[in-house]
Amino acid sequence: MNYIGQEIQDFSVKAYQQGELKDVTKKDVLGKWSVFFFYPADFSFVCPTELEDLQAKYSQFKAAGAEIYSVSEDTEFAHFAWAEASEGIGKIQYPMLADPAGKLAKAFDVLNEDLGQTYRAAFVVDPDGVIQSYTINNMGIGRNAAEIFRTLQAAQFVRAHGDKVCPASWQPGDDVLEPGTDLVGKL
Amino acid sequence: MNYIGQEIQDFSVKAYQQGELKDVTKKDVLGKWSVFFFYPADFSFVCPTELEDLQAKYSQFKAAGAEIYSVSEDTEFAHFAWAEASEGIGKIQYPMLADPAGKLAKAFDVLNEDLGQTYRAAFVVDPDGVIQSYTINNMGIGRNAAEIFRTLQAAQFVRAHGDKVCPASWQPGDDVLEPGTDLVGKL
Amino acid sequence: MNYIGQEIQDFSVKAYQQGELKDVTKKDVLGKWSVFFFYPADFSFVCPTELEDLQAKYSQFKAAGAEIYSVSEDTEFAHFAWAEASEGIGKIQYPMLADPAGKLAKAFDVLNEDLGQTYRAAFVVDPDGVIQSYTINNMGIGRNAAEIFRTLQAAQFVRAHGDKVCPASWQPGDDVLEPGTDLVGKL
Amino acid sequence: MNYIGQEIQDFSVKAYQQGELKDVTKKDVLGKWSVFFFYPADFSFVCPTELEDLQAKYSQFKAAGAEIYSVSEDTEFAHFAWAEASEGIGKIQYPMLADPAGKLAKAFDVLNEDLGQTYRAAFVVDPDGVIQSYTINNMGIGRNAAEIFRTLQAAQFVRAHGDKVCPASWQPGDDVLEPGTDLVGKL
Amino acid sequence: MNYIGQEIQDFSVKAYQQGELKDVTKKDVLGKWSVFFFYPADFSFVCPTELEDLQAKYSQFKAAGAEIYSVSEDTEFAHFAWAEASEGIGKIQYPMLADPAGKLAKAFDVLNEDLGQTYRAAFVVDPDGVIQSYTINNMGIGRNAAEIFRTLQAAQFVRAHGDKVCPASWQPGDDVLEPGTDLVGKL
Amino acid sequence: MNYIGQEIQDFSVKAYQQGELKDVTKKDVLGKWSVFFFYPADFSFVCPTELEDLQAKYSQFKAAGAEIYSVSEDTEFAHFAWAEASEGIGKIQYPMLADPAGKLAKAFDVLNEDLGQTYRAAFVVDPDGVIQSYTINNMGIGRNAAEIFRTLQAAQFVRAHGDKVCPASWQPGDDVLEPGTDLVGKL
Amino acid sequence: MNYIGQEIQDFSVKAYQQGELKDVTKKDVLGKWSVFFFYPADFSFVCPTELEDLQAKYSQFKAAGAEIYSVSEDTEFAHFAWAEASEGIGKIQYPMLADPAGKLAKAFDVLNEDLGQTYRAAFVVDPDGVIQSYTINNMGIGRNAAEIFRTLQAAQFVRAHGDKVCPASWQPGDDVLEPGTDLVGKL
Amino acid sequence: MNYIGQEIQDFSVKAYQQGELKDVTKKDVLGKWSVFFFYPADFSFVCPTELEDLQAKYSQFKAAGAEIYSVSEDTEFAHFAWAEASEGIGKIQYPMLADPAGKLAKAFDVLNEDLGQTYRAAFVVDPDGVIQSYTINNMGIGRNAAEIFRTLQAAQFVRAHGDKVCPASWQPGDDVLEPGTDLVGKL
Amino acid sequence: MNYIGQEIQDFSVKAYQQGELKDVTKKDVLGKWSVFFFYPADFSFVCPTELEDLQAKYSQFKAAGAEIYSVSEDTEFAHFAWAEASEGIGKIQYPMLADPAGKLAKAFDVLNEDLGQTYRAAFVVDPDGVIQSYTINNMGIGRNAAEIFRTLQAAQFVRAHGDKVCPASWQPGDDVLEPGTDLVGKL
Amino acid sequence: MNYIGQEIQDFSVKAYQQGELKDVTKKDVLGKWSVFFFYPADFSFVCPTELEDLQAKYSQFKAAGAEIYSVSEDTEFAHFAWAEASEGIGKIQYPMLADPAGKLAKAFDVLNEDLGQTYRAAFVVDPDGVIQSYTINNMGIGRNAAEIFRTLQAAQFVRAHGDKVCPASWQPGDDVLEPGTDLVGKL
Repeated sequence: MNYIGQEIQDFSVKAYQQGELKDVTKKDVLGKWSVFFFYPADFSFVCPTELEDLQAKYSQFKAAGAEIYSVSEDTEFAHFAWAEASEGIGKIQYPMLADPAGKLAKAFDVLNEDLGQTYRAAFVVDPDGVIQSYTINNMGIGRNAAEIFRTLQAAQFVRAHGDKVCPASWQPGDDVLEPGTDLVGKL
Repeated sequence: MNYIGQEIQDFSVKAYQQGELKDVTKKDVLGKWSVFFFYPADFSFVCPTELEDLQAKYSQFKAAGAEIYSVSEDTEFAHFAWAEASEGIGKIQYPMLADPAGKLAKAFDVLNEDLGQTYRAAFVVDPDGVIQSYTINNMGIGRNAAEIFRTLQAAQFVRAHGDKVCPASWQPGDDVLEPGTDLVGKL
Repeated sequence: MNYIGQEIQDFSVKAYQQGELKDVTKKDVLGKWSVFFFYPADFSFVCPTELEDLQAKYSQFKAAGAEIYSVSEDTEFAHFAWAEASEGIGKIQYPMLADPAGKLAKAFDVLNEDLGQTYRAAFVVDPDGVIQSYTINNMGIGRNAAEIFRTLQAAQFVRAHGDKVCPASWQPGDDVLEPGTDLVGKL
Repeated sequence: MNYIGQEIQDFSVKAYQQGELKDVTKKDVLGKWSVFFFYPADFSFVCPTELEDLQAKYSQFKAAGAEIYSVSEDTEFAHFAWAEASEGIGKIQYPMLADPAGKLAKAFDVLNEDLGQTYRAAFVVDPDGVIQSYTINNMGIGRNAAEIFRTLQAAQFVRAHGDKVCPASWQPGDDVLEPGTDLVGKL
Repeated sequence: MNYIGQEIQDFSVKAYQQGELKDVTKKDVLGKWSVFFFYPADFSFVCPTELEDLQAKYSQFKAAGAEIYSVSEDTEFAHFAWAEASEGIGKIQYPMLADPAGKLAKAFDVLNEDLGQTYRAAFVVDPDGVIQSYTINNMGIGRNAAEIFRTLQAAQFVRAHGDKVCPASWQPGDDVLEPGTDLVGKL
Repeated sequence: MNYIGQEIQDFSVKAYQQGELKDVTKKDVLGKWSVFFFYPADFSFVCPTELEDLQAKYSQFKAAGAEIYSVSEDTEFAHFAWAEASEGIGKIQYPMLADPAGKLAKAFDVLNEDLGQTYRAAFVVDPDGVIQSYTINNMGIGRNAAEIFRTLQAAQFVRAHGDKVCPASWQPGDDVLEPGTDLVGKL
Repeated sequence: MNYIGQEIQDFSVKAYQQGELKDVTKKDVLGKWSVFFFYPADFSFVCPTELEDLQAKYSQFKAAGAEIYSVSEDTEFAHFAWAEASEGIGKIQYPMLADPAGKLAKAFDVLNEDLGQTYRAAFVVDPDGVIQSYTINNMGIGRNAAEIFRTLQAAQFVRAHGDKVCPASWQPGDDVLEPGTDLVGKL
Repeated sequence: MNYIGQEIQDFSVKAYQQGELKDVTKKDVLGKWSVFFFYPADFSFVCPTELEDLQAKYSQFKAAGAEIYSVSEDTEFAHFAWAEASEGIGKIQYPMLADPAGKLAKAFDVLNEDLGQTYRAAFVVDPDGVIQSYTINNMGIGRNAAEIFRTLQAAQFVRAHGDKVCPASWQPGDDVLEPGTDLVGKL
Repeated sequence: MNYIGQEIQDFSVKAYQQGELKDVTKKDVLGKWSVFFFYPADFSFVCPTELEDLQAKYSQFKAAGAEIYSVSEDTEFAHFAWAEASEGIGKIQYPMLADPAGKLAKAFDVLNEDLGQTYRAAFVVDPDGVIQSYTINNMGIGRNAAEIFRTLQAAQFVRAHGDKVCPASWQPGDDVLEPGTDLVGKL
Repeated sequence: MNYIGQEIQDFSVKAYQQGELKDVTKKDVLGKWSVFFFYPADFSFVCPTELEDLQAKYSQFKAAGAEIYSVSEDTEFAHFAWAEASEGIGKIQYPMLADPAGKLAKAFDVLNEDLGQTYRAAFVVDPDGVIQSYTINNMGIGRNAAEIFRTLQAAQFVRAHGDKVCPASWQPGDDVLEPGTDLVGKL
């Protein structure tokens, strides 16, 4: 099933954020842009670099009005312990969702059921909870926080301007196209 | 349905490539890396810039042993006419697949059935025809050829080295991680 | 399924008409006679001559209170580009419907699903949206605008006069038959 | 269901031909072109003129290697009696099939089940028993033997020449088109 | 299924009667006794003698308050033409029902579906539309109008007298039996 | 279901015949013509007269190579006792079948399930066990042995002469018709 | 299915009683104790002795407020004739139910479907129509009227006294037991 | 379901017999006549008298080649304890089957599922394991060992003599009937 | 199915308690803690020691506000007799439930259907009728009343204090843990 | 479903044991006694004390030929990290199974699906992989390693001695019972 244009399902999970345990639900997500960033497991190898890569750009995402939610199939206790044990993870400021029951992973269809871990997937969700872009990589292939941010900005631009659309590799400030019959077949 | 790890289905479509009409089948695709790059429609607005962005990096993809296949729901005749009418499209060297029967779009589940056009999706497929990464954007959100190329390289690295995995935003030449129990919780 | 006496389904498609893009729905069709004229693809070979053959008789159809709708599985952008590229197509005055999602082609059951193109079919539809006559030819066999017009006139005559019926090859002005028991077995 | 490209079903019916009663089966039909010409009922009003119109061109159809089969839901006895009673029908030379069990009418889906009569339908069938063109008119709308003959010739031409296709309103001797990439969008 | 005691279904058919075409429905049948007399086909061999045999006794049936309806799968036009062509049929005064859609033949389950003709069946129906007696013969076996009339009279007698029953081969005027316990085992 | 042309089912029942109890099966019936004559009940009122009417013609049926089987839902003991108690029944020479389990009555579909008795039905069965004619009367309406015999003779004639058919009310010795196209519509 | 504690179904049958024919329904049975006594067939061998054995005790059953109903699959006419023919049966005073439609035999599940006769079964039914005891013997095994009477009396005693229960082979006047915890394991 | 003529199912249960615990299976039962005698519960009130009544006649049953099996839903331990606690039960010589899993009670359909106890049922089973007679009484109604024994003897007589049948209340030594047509309706 | 957190089903059974027979239902159980203690059979070997082990601690359970219910598939009569026969059982003060119909055993899914006996299972049920702990042992493995009591106390403690949880092998008076983020990974 | 007597399913999971990561499958478990000890989550509160309680008795289990397997829904990486972070967990010598895919938890039906954590369950499994005893406690209620060990010993004793059974609270060295009819009702 293709998830573009689908609204995310209701959910309620535990989360770890900067030394605190809390609840996060769909209601918390609505009203602002969000990125759901799935990774296979706490205490494993590639994952930390991806999470730290995101943290390095966290202030940019916040400035753009977006929240980041990392998600793994570990418990909130494991997130807590990982943050205590790892210097890099300890610095993460965004909420780390705990999905041991697999609810989010199944809702986004990124669970590798044989391993009980998720693929490396990132979803860009608009303030109405509707998925606008997503990327899923096989287990070993890391993602790029900069590209996720570029995609978020493009999605925000389309939502804001409607009749204008972004050309390839667009960055804020680049020219945008104004569709019209004068352009048919001319580009 | 999640397509990671799935082998692509059999297909046989018409294609336009540099002034010629030809057939392209799954058999042509196997044995080398490939990128399937879906776009909504010929003669429309954002699409040309994405296709030209890919053409600009085409020699890099070829050097990496990968072929690019653009796909839309238009006929090969429309591709032909577009290449004649548009300077930018006229320069494209990779095969442009014609999918008016929607076979590829349904096989990859990227068809917007209401419009009869596809979402902006890119699939990285390995030489066995197995999908290793994919990104799907809503209609208005353009893609980034550089990121597709980076992902292709990461997937190639994982296939070649197996026991090594790529950290986030990895580029060829960057350090890679060697998993081991000494790294558990240390990153 | 036989379509004689069936009302056409609701539909809403994009259309190109003389340099403009517009929407055409079932509502636009009701209230006057209409001819739906399906052809395989823009920019292909036989099709233009059929479309130009119809254009040559367009004023006759209009005088008879009928609209012509050509339909292919191409987009409105392809129609636009074709009109710009081809002198003959550029002269067409009737609406050219864009059916890339295959809605009309499936509703009239003229889609060759393997090719994603339609057979050469023409439907004569009365002001209530009810099909009164239709002809379907295999891919290579062109149609005859004059015969479509003759059939339209015969259908209009039957609708207007009810108790009178048209003999074979009837043209307006020819004698018509008045059915009665005195004619049983006498013709 | 669309019948283009479908092979006709097996059938075996009684027929009247020039004072004789005989059997006609699918086997008799294969190997030459044929036209199945359905009409509502013997001894009714429009029908005789259509049948006589066909008879007037019968030598042309025979010269073109095609047989005509008229079909109604009457018995062979009724055909016999009609030929005796009506001067025009008495002159018909082609076989008049008797389909009181509705087998042919159902196979071609032209039965008006409420009346127990068929719509006015004509099918052009190739020597393999495959339908290449068909027209169905509502009860009151007569057909045109000349157009049926033109369509038959066009279908024969396509079968004979394969790579050439007929433009609109084509008649034998007219120019034909030779498809090629040089013609894309040029017609 | 056994039809004794079943009410006939609703029907509406065309009929020929003495030079006129008319409609006959179940409503026309109710309120008086009726005989439905099915025969295979107009213009065939045994049938006329059966129909003429009935006509010869028609005044007796009318005097007994019963109507006769002959039924075949031919059209009303064929009945008309037959009456004109055949002296014997031309003299028939009762309505000849036209059942080309097979509605009556299926309702009474006397259709030979392979031939599209009915078996030789006669049904005696009471004024409530309920079947009281029926005989069905295979194709070649003619019926006996005198026996149908005798059965009708016996059925009328039972309806009128209720507690009295007719002995075998009873004719009006013969003795009837008065059932009572004094007769048990004594006859 | 219409039984014309149906082969009777296998059966095995007890029978009373002239003071003896015996078994009768389908095998006993095959190879000669037979009449199955159902009546409601032993010791009841109309029935004896019908059975005696048949007995009066029994020598004619035997001379025509046919056997008569009367059938009721009573036991063979009841038949026995009835023959002892009633002078008329005591003279019957044909086998009286006992069908208390309703097997024959259900196979011929003549059981009035509410009463546990059969309608007054007579079946003419050919030497292959195939039903050629049948008549079913409601409870109170007696049958006519002479008409059953006439129908048997007509059925025998059709079986013997095939291409000849009997006109209405035909009796052996009457003229028969030789079907041919010269007779179409002439009778 | 076990019938103890089940209420008998509604029924309506014909009956013979002392020279009269009458109707017997469930309504006639309710309000007093009853015995349903099934036997295979009138005019057969063991049955008469069982029926006469019951008649010999009929005055005792009546005195105990119980009615006896004999039942077979014969008609009321056969019962009538049997009573006339047999001295013993002629003396029977209780109603002899006629069940040719098998309604009672099926409701009590005692029909041997292959023979169309019932097993030798006796049911003791209380005034509410509820079965309190039943015995079913295979075809050849006769019953004992005295034991049926003893069982009836025991069932009446239990209904009347509730908290007291009958020891084995109890007869009216014998001691009865008063259940209580002092008796647990003491008998 | 009626059990007459049904073979008992396979079973294997524990049993108590004269101070010993043992297994009893269907195999032990075959080859001789048997009586299955169900009672509600050990240590309850009516039951002991019935069991002792049977014990009193046990030598007669043994002399007739029959075994008695009492059955309740209690365990073999409860039977053991009951025999120790009760003088009457202690004297019982026949096997007391333990059916706590309800297998026998369900196979014979005598389980009152609400109470987990059986009705008072007795089954007479022949040496082939086929049920020939059975009686089921409601909870409070005791049985009669003498009648069970009489029925057993009648069943044995029928099995031994086949063509002879027992009159009502028959005891060994009584006259038996020889069926023949001379007796029909004479008894 | 896992029963933790499930509410027990409605039930109504007979029980023996200190010389009295009584009814026990779910309603009697609600409002206080309860232990359901299943054992295979009365009068068997291991069971008595388990029941006496529980009786020895009965005052402790009562002091803790809990009732004990032993359950077997025996009747209340067998319990009664066992208490009379066995000195140890005779001293038991808690209710001994009789479950011959298997209702409780099936509701708790502890019935060995092949034996008609239950496994050795103990359920700790809270005052709302919700199962908080259960242990099931195979047939031969006895239980430990002390451990059941310890588990009951732990369950009572959790219900009373909610936010505090019991460490392993906890006994009342032992320290308990106060969960908090300061303890994550520290124990 | 009751698991007593069921063989455990095939499984293959990752495990952490004393600093090493390894695979554990059903094959590793067969051939010796085993205890599967489920706990909710790593890094949580009650769990460590239970795990340490088991470790304290680990040498006793080993001496008895049994292996202990703790199981939670955490990954092997989390187990690794926990062992590094917690002194008590660091000392555990038995394998800690990682079940993030929930395979073991579902096979033993102890998964709280809403939490993605297991109930506190302990299973005693014999060398054939068959479950002999199990205890399941709600989330807050800790277990007792001593009782698990006692139960293991009792199960081993039953397996070894078969015909002897353990009384309640039995410990090795205690008296055991020798079942025999002399003990029925005497304990």
